[in-house]
Amino acid sequence: MMNILFHIPELSRVTPCLNNVRNYLKAVDTDADKFRIVFNGNAVNSLVDKTESADQWKDLAEKHNNIQLDVCSNSLRGMGLLPESLIRPISIVPSAILTLVTLQNEGWIYLRP
Amino acid sequence: MMNILFHIPELSRVTPCLNNVRNYLKAVDTDADKFRIVFNGNAVNSLVDKTESADQWKDLAEKHNNIQLDVCSNSLRGMGLLPESLIRPISIVPSAILTLVTLQNEGWIYLRP
Amino acid sequence: MMNILFHIPELSRVTPCLNNVRNYLKAVDTDADKFRIVFNGNAVNSLVDKTESADQWKDLAEKHNNIQLDVCSNSLRGMGLLPESLIRPISIVPSAILTLVTLQNEGWIYLRP
Repeated sequence: MMNILFHIPELSRVTPCLNNVRNYLKAVDTDADKFRIVFNGNAVNSLVDKTESADQWKDLAEKHNNIQLDVCSNSLRGMGLLPESLIRPISIVPSAILTLVTLQNEGWIYLRP
Repeated sequence: MMNILFHIPELSRVTPCLNNVRNYLKAVDTDADKFRIVFNGNAVNSLVDKTESADQWKDLAEKHNNIQLDVCSNSLRGMGLLPESLIRPISIVPSAILTLVTLQNEGWIYLRP
Repeated sequence: MMNILFHIPELSRVTPCLNNVRNYLKAVDTDADKFRIVFNGNAVNSLVDKTESADQWKDLAEKHNNIQLDVCSNSLRGMGLLPESLIRPISIVPSAILTLVTLQNEGWIYLRP
């Protein structure tokens, strides 16, 4: 079992990351591994409810309960977004970087699409 | 001895990575370390035979047998490229992300130029 | 105590990284963790004395003595910059990648804003 940490700090890297997670799941054909997808910077815009990529993340997270979406509250403030505007379920973290550091320290594997 | 994993998911990061590997080899002045260079997304276009950067990778991998080039078959399909169009030798992997996760789990050090 | 390694190989990622470090420090409210910020590629231009982001890094590194700025001498040459043109204090390393590999091998946690 692997614990896999995706970091998306740029809006342009959201779709590549979606493809990465889908292809990985197809390649291993199991939900044994755990994923945390950590969004910060302008990438947080991709999680606004009813937008195309948000729908795709929501769909993916609903089908695979080993996928958790984390969004940085600093970045939300920076982008002028309210947590209520985002898809559910989502985990709002105080600092994306603190989350990424803490999880790596616990052995999670870091990827930056 | 170090095991070093470069991840190139963007075409614009191919030349920087070439420079990184060359400068590293110059700095250490030995071929004791191992390199895996993992291409996915649109970066796979840089490996098409006869193109400039492909020639440079081929040249580098021929001079240093501690360098392996890995290319994602999902990305090849996505870009409409056939494996036969690429430089040799190259390793085609089913999922770049699965390769990156597996190697990190075995202790390889991750870099994202 | 965490040892945290930020890699900035692109000029466009300098400001996001500044925000990352500031938000992290605000979130943990201590200077117990250590930071190395490693600049290479065109990101080294952001360290030229009197430019806006250079002033902000200088200010941050002066306020927090757990932050060290490292700049790649290959990249300085590539950009036609002299070490004397940069802010102080700064550490000039022969190869950014060698520094990133060596520190990760010693347990530093890698982040690529």
